[in-house]
Amino acid sequence: MAELPIHTKDTSYKVFIGEGLCSKVGSLLPKQYNQVFIITDSHVANLYLNEVVASFSSNVTVSTYTVPAGENSKQMDWFHECHTFAIESGLERSDLIVALGGGVVGDLAGFVAATYMRGIDYIQVPTTILAHDSSVGGKVAINHPQGKNMIGSFHQPKAVIYDTETLATLSHTEWRSGMAEVIKHALIADHEMLEQCLELPSFDSISNATLADLLKKGIQVKAAIVREDEKEKGVRRYLNLGHTLGHAIEAESGYSSITHGEAVAIGIDFALFLSNKQFPEATLPIDAYRKWLEKHHYPMSSKLKEYSIEALMEKIKNDKKNDRQQIRMVLLSSVGEPTLASYTEKALMDELIEFRSEVRDT
Amino acid sequence: MAELPIHTKDTSYKVFIGEGLCSKVGSLLPKQYNQVFIITDSHVANLYLNEVVASFSSNVTVSTYTVPAGENSKQMDWFHECHTFAIESGLERSDLIVALGGGVVGDLAGFVAATYMRGIDYIQVPTTILAHDSSVGGKVAINHPQGKNMIGSFHQPKAVIYDTETLATLSHTEWRSGMAEVIKHALIADHEMLEQCLELPSFDSISNATLADLLKKGIQVKAAIVREDEKEKGVRRYLNLGHTLGHAIEAESGYSSITHGEAVAIGIDFALFLSNKQFPEATLPIDAYRKWLEKHHYPMSSKLKEYSIEALMEKIKNDKKNDRQQIRMVLLSSVGEPTLASYTEKALMDELIEFRSEVRDT
Repeated sequence: MAELPIHTKDTSYKVFIGEGLCSKVGSLLPKQYNQVFIITDSHVANLYLNEVVASFSSNVTVSTYTVPAGENSKQMDWFHECHTFAIESGLERSDLIVALGGGVVGDLAGFVAATYMRGIDYIQVPTTILAHDSSVGGKVAINHPQGKNMIGSFHQPKAVIYDTETLATLSHTEWRSGMAEVIKHALIADHEMLEQCLELPSFDSISNATLADLLKKGIQVKAAIVREDEKEKGVRRYLNLGHTLGHAIEAESGYSSITHGEAVAIGIDFALFLSNKQFPEATLPIDAYRKWLEKHHYPMSSKLKEYSIEALMEKIKNDKKNDRQQIRMVLLSSVGEPTLASYTEKALMDELIEFRSEVRDT
Repeated sequence: MAELPIHTKDTSYKVFIGEGLCSKVGSLLPKQYNQVFIITDSHVANLYLNEVVASFSSNVTVSTYTVPAGENSKQMDWFHECHTFAIESGLERSDLIVALGGGVVGDLAGFVAATYMRGIDYIQVPTTILAHDSSVGGKVAINHPQGKNMIGSFHQPKAVIYDTETLATLSHTEWRSGMAEVIKHALIADHEMLEQCLELPSFDSISNATLADLLKKGIQVKAAIVREDEKEKGVRRYLNLGHTLGHAIEAESGYSSITHGEAVAIGIDFALFLSNKQFPEATLPIDAYRKWLEKHHYPMSSKLKEYSIEALMEKIKNDKKNDRQQIRMVLLSSVGEPTLASYTEKALMDELIEFRSEVRDT
């Protein structure tokens, strides 16, 4: 089991990474809690809920609440239902919420914890590769029909307990979704981690040890940035590489036909396209990145042809990261060197049209 | 115009108190904002919205959203509507929300600000006496059908701009509601402020200067406590004097037939009753307090006979301030000396029954 420390201005906590940790959740907590409220989804509940419940000693009151699997559970109605059930379970300020599942459950349960009685403790028990990203750093939220993660807050967990055995049951789609955030961290971080990603064999045949190593590295990239800028006033924005267009694609697809990571993967491709124009001297790994997407059967950027540019731009305009009509994009001046660039709506739309016409069909 | 500084661990801001400040809101902001989103209610909008809107210079984009007057607007649906309208108005992370109104608007708009894009700046422009309490200290929330302020967070405003002229239009009910929090601050603070409260003539005939002086003192009591304990882990709990029973009465009355302060006034009477039993040596001003309630036409504690003790206890049990089945009550060991006492459900119910049978009809 590996332990990574996460530091923010006000708090510190540990990320535990290892095999079989679902059965140790109760003993890895930073302090004793009288009552625990586990929020999970219908898919994860079948696989790991019993094991996590059994990890608590008999003098801890454990209640559980299961939302339907899928992005649609990150909605106001489910948020309200979680609060109702927590009140009915007698959950108190000094108790603990456990987020057991992928990014959707983590964001939802974290936001419930951030707002229940004005904030109680919670821990993340991620069960997807994607959640190596979302479970660390305290960004929690639900979606608004008009934008992803529009309603939320910053609320750091008391621990992240990452059982890599849970990753064995992930679908190919979930692998792709998660590995997009891994390669994003590599692009932000350094050539070495990027090479490691680009050389990966088919996701099916990645060893547990390699995966655990990549997740650790990804979390370390994030931890270093969050330490410097918890509230996303500065360098934390770099973590949004690929996310401006990615979020728009997700929203346009109704959060169903394409996963978060798959959408971000296209967004990264666009960011590399823009970076190449802004920094023509940089030798960005555009071809290698596109080959990697193809090798691992990602929806390619040609998928953009399925969407209306105007509709995508409408979503992009509403993005949280904008400032005064300028759309703020994360670019790379080289691998490991993220930077911010501002575009007017018109300029970005022109770029998006050019990008879409350039990308070849697969 | 008076200026009171408020300090918390992470931030500082000013409370401005004076006449005619509604027309100066735009010029009292701690920094420039490009866009401002004013949330108010239907009652206050008619009286002061135009004046506040006009206080901003023409290069600031101002949008407004009006919720129905009354406690029922502190609900999830209105919270969601505020977010929708903010998104549609193009409100960005670097913009400002203005809470223009009483405690309901302040709590609702503050919670919208706390969660819009994970938190943006807001200011409080209170228009009731009650809001001298709620607008300072950063506690924001909406109600859950099963409990008041159950869903919320701590989010400090960037300024509180308190125009005492707005208090001239308050109804008798609102005077009573607000003055209950003023006398609560006096009971927590010292004999001198308490004497000043007890000697007040009919609320109709209080001078502006006396009222401004009492509000300043009330805010100073609160500021000193919030500085020491922003997140209500310790001494901030003292500010809940009268609120445990008060919240239960409000909830049982459906937030309609009795105001917050009127319910708290009965709660304070009960707290004095309990304090007198715990500290028989203390000479608590129980009779003087009850005379004061009667003089100012408060609903007296005999009103408790309208409620089921079991139903009140059910609400009290769900209170946020409890810990492990013990119900935590704020008592006074003497005026200016608040303290915490824990009761089992059974013990508190017995006390409540005794209290109810003791209080005489008016």
